[in-house]
This record gives sequence, C-alpha cells and structure tokens, in this order.
Amino acid sequence: MKIIGEKINGTRKRVAQAIQERDGAFIQDLARKQAEAGADWLDANAGTHPSREPEDLIWLVENIQAATDKPICLDSANPKALEVAIKAVKQTPMINSISAEPHRLEGVLPIVAAHKTPAIALAMDEKGIPKTKEDRLNVIRRLLGETRKLGIADNQLYFDPLAMTIATGTDNGLTFFSTIRSIRSEFPEVHITCGLSNISFGMPARAHINRVFLTLSMEAGLDSAICDPMDHDIKTAMLASELLLNQDKHCLKFTRAFRAGAFTKV
Amino acid sequence: MKIIGEKINGTRKRVAQAIQERDGAFIQDLARKQAEAGADWLDANAGTHPSREPEDLIWLVENIQAATDKPICLDSANPKALEVAIKAVKQTPMINSISAEPHRLEGVLPIVAAHKTPAIALAMDEKGIPKTKEDRLNVIRRLLGETRKLGIADNQLYFDPLAMTIATGTDNGLTFFSTIRSIRSEFPEVHITCGLSNISFGMPARAHINRVFLTLSMEAGLDSAICDPMDHDIKTAMLASELLLNQDKHCLKFTRAFRAGAFTKV
Repeated sequence: MKIIGEKINGTRKRVAQAIQERDGAFIQDLARKQAEAGADWLDANAGTHPSREPEDLIWLVENIQAATDKPICLDSANPKALEVAIKAVKQTPMINSISAEPHRLEGVLPIVAAHKTPAIALAMDEKGIPKTKEDRLNVIRRLLGETRKLGIADNQLYFDPLAMTIATGTDNGLTFFSTIRSIRSEFPEVHITCGLSNISFGMPARAHINRVFLTLSMEAGLDSAICDPMDHDIKTAMLASELLLNQDKHCLKFTRAFRAGAFTKV
Repeated sequence: MKIIGEKINGTRKRVAQAIQERDGAFIQDLARKQAEAGADWLDANAGTHPSREPEDLIWLVENIQAATDKPICLDSANPKALEVAIKAVKQTPMINSISAEPHRLEGVLPIVAAHKTPAIALAMDEKGIPKTKEDRLNVIRRLLGETRKLGIADNQLYFDPLAMTIATGTDNGLTFFSTIRSIRSEFPEVHITCGLSNISFGMPARAHINRVFLTLSMEAGLDSAICDPMDHDIKTAMLASELLLNQDKHCLKFTRAFRAGAFTKV
C-alpha cells in the first residue's frame, strides 16, 4: 500500500490559517510528521481563491520541501496553479486530479501528459458520480481512451472509484468493492486509490467504519489511499490487512512497526 | 453474524477454578454478560478428565440456564458427557464438534443425528489439519457424505475451515479465505464458523490481526464466529463489517449499538 498524506489541505481551518499567516513552521511540521509516519506522497491543497492559488501552492511546496524529500501530490483543478507549482517541485509530483469533467480534461489532463506525472483519476464526469458500477466503469473507459491517446501509461494513473456514504444506501460499500474488482480485472496496470472517510459521512463512530472500509477495499484491490498516515486506527488496520492479504513478506513490516510502537495508542 | 460465546471454557484457568470450587455465581455472571453482549449460543466446555466431565458439564449447563435462556453449545468430544448434558438442556443445543476423525465420527456424529442438533464441523481428520484448500475441501466432502447419510441437513452444520497462524506462512490467511469461498460456492446451505485467535498465534499485536481477520473472513462468507462477544475490538469490527457488507438493513444494528455505547471503550 502507498499512502498519500492528506493533512496539508487548505479546506482544513488550521491549514487555511497557516497559509494565510505564512506560518511555514506549521506546514513543515505537518510535512515532517506525515513523512515519518510513512506517507509516500504529501498532498498539497491551497484551497484558496484561484487568483491567489498559484502563489499559495508554491509557498506550500517550498515549505514541504524544506521539511522532507517525499514527493508532493499537487491537489488543484486550476491549470495556472499546477503549471507554476510543477516548476517549483524538486521531484516529479503526482497530480490530484483528472476526471471526465470537461474542465479537467481540458485544463489538467494536458499538464499530466506534458510532465509525465502520476495522477489521481476520479470516476466521474460532468453529470457527477455515476450510481452504478457499470456507469463508473464507462467513465473510466472513456478517461483511459483520452489518457492513452496522449501517451499516458496506465500505470501512471491512480483511479478513485469514489465511495458514496453507506448512510444513503447500505449497498454502497458492495458497489464500491465490486467496482474496484472490475477495474483490477479489466485494467490490470492501473493503480486504485480512494479517500477513506466519504463512506461514513453522516454516520456515528466513523473511525470504526473507515478502517473496516480500508480492509475491504484492500481485499478488493485498492493499492493506495489518501489518508492521514498518523491516524492510529487507519495505520494499524492497514498493517494488519497487508499481513493477512499476503502483502507483507515474512511479516517483516508488521513486526518492525510493532517494535517501533505503531500499535501503542498515544 | 451469529456469535458463539467462548468464555465458559474449562481450559481457561479462572473457569477451571470455578468448576472445581462449584462457584456457580462466577459461571452465571459469565453467562449473563455474554448473553447481554449479543451471544447467540454460549459455549460450555468443562475441560476436565473424562471421568468427571459428565457431571461437570451438567453443572455448567445448570448454571448457564439459571442465568440466561440463550441456547448452549456443548463443547466436548466425550459421548458420555454429551449424552447426559443433552438431557439437562432446556433448548436444543449446538454440539462442538464433529470432524472426520474416527473417534468423533463414531462417538459424536450419532448424537448429532439422533438429537437433530446443529453442530460445528471441523475440516480435519485423523491426519490433522490439511495444508491445502483442496485437501480441506476433500475432508468436508467426506464429512458431508456421512452427515447426509444420517439425514442431517446441511444447514445444521457450522463448518470451521481451521485457520493456521500467519506467523508460519504469510499465505495462510488467503488459503483460509479462499477455502471459505469454495465452501460457500459448493455447499450454499452450510454455515461457516471459526475461532478468531489461531490466525495470530505467535504474533505481536494479536487483537489488531484478529479483528481484521474477522472482517476478511466475513467478506469471504463467514456467517458465525466463536469469540468473546464482550471484546470491544471484535464487536466493533463485526458491526462495521456487517454494515459495509450490506448485512445491516437501514444501518439499524450499527446505529442502535452506537446509542447503546458499543463503540465506547470501557
């Protein structure tokens, strides 16, 4: 499993404040902690007005890079912000995200193609998130038609099948897992990712739902997640799931994490 | 999911002491607490010498029945103990267990047939637990040959595919889940059960492994478990797994359990 650390996101109040006040120490601390906790990429989302976003995103990139050499996941639908931020990153970034929505196809996809970056690809179009598995697969097929035309390799793409909350349909989990299985089977080279909290929106005891959702998604074929690598519940569920799904050779990752205190709740 | 409460087991030191000292209050308390926590059956295992087992098992049955009206799972391979205990129970008990071992086929299976009880059926024979999925399925096929000859309905049987610890083979989890899927597909009427702790034998942070094991087993088709219904980690994983696997209509069980405090760690 690869982890895209989600904490540096300007839609979170404390991060928005840090961006506004140019509190670099706060961002650097978030970057360092996520890297130490095992993040493979660090998401950077300025969450500000399009006119301010380019300079805010560059500022985030600079502070993240001052703290860690993990690659950055540039989280924006704003081509201007992406273009300038790509010049500021030291390593090839991931881009979050493309989709079959026209403004992302026109504005973001060419940037992914030009810079040969990995990219998160959402299974949605201008009509929103399709209800059925088949309709989501159709969106993914269309998107892959576009990416292949531009010479983007399937394994650069991290498809997010987009979970809907279980609160509005108790089959939403099964639809999601089944969509993952179909993507895995039809497009074996692509990666599959998702956020872990949409599934429990509107429900109580969300952390309990989210970690079981992670396990079941991994069983279906998820190989990356956009999450908080410092979250004890998520991290321990991920380690135990990798262990039981035979993704942890000689149990080494699990036992090393145990010795490093990963299972001790602080 | 159905739960067979495992706590009243004479191989546990404190329970053995209670049996020896005829401490009925201790057993009744264990019975009441497991019933309140959601056990569907209460396992009763005297764990004593065969010569003492019949009277010890009857004593357990009487104390459990003084505390709750949940049915009992008579846990013994001793035909004498089973025969007398069956006379003492008020409701049809479950029997734990039959297997393809000759002494259980000859001693326990006829009791299951005569009393038309549900029974746990272990996927093992006189040579022990088969290593491969196919060999376990062969044992199960042989066992079903015997039970069907005696008029035992497939849906009376709770097959335990018997997990081997992940510590001795990192594919032991996958073999187990795959065995469950094959049983489910080949014999759709039978139930599938298991204990939750063998999988983590010899590993650290066992509770974390056990609860993820429960989730993955449920996904594969497990519909019952032999466990401690008072175990917070197991109970919450079970509730969240039922929710995400569409086994909890309108999320009612989950939200009711939340309101009853099931997710608050005490």
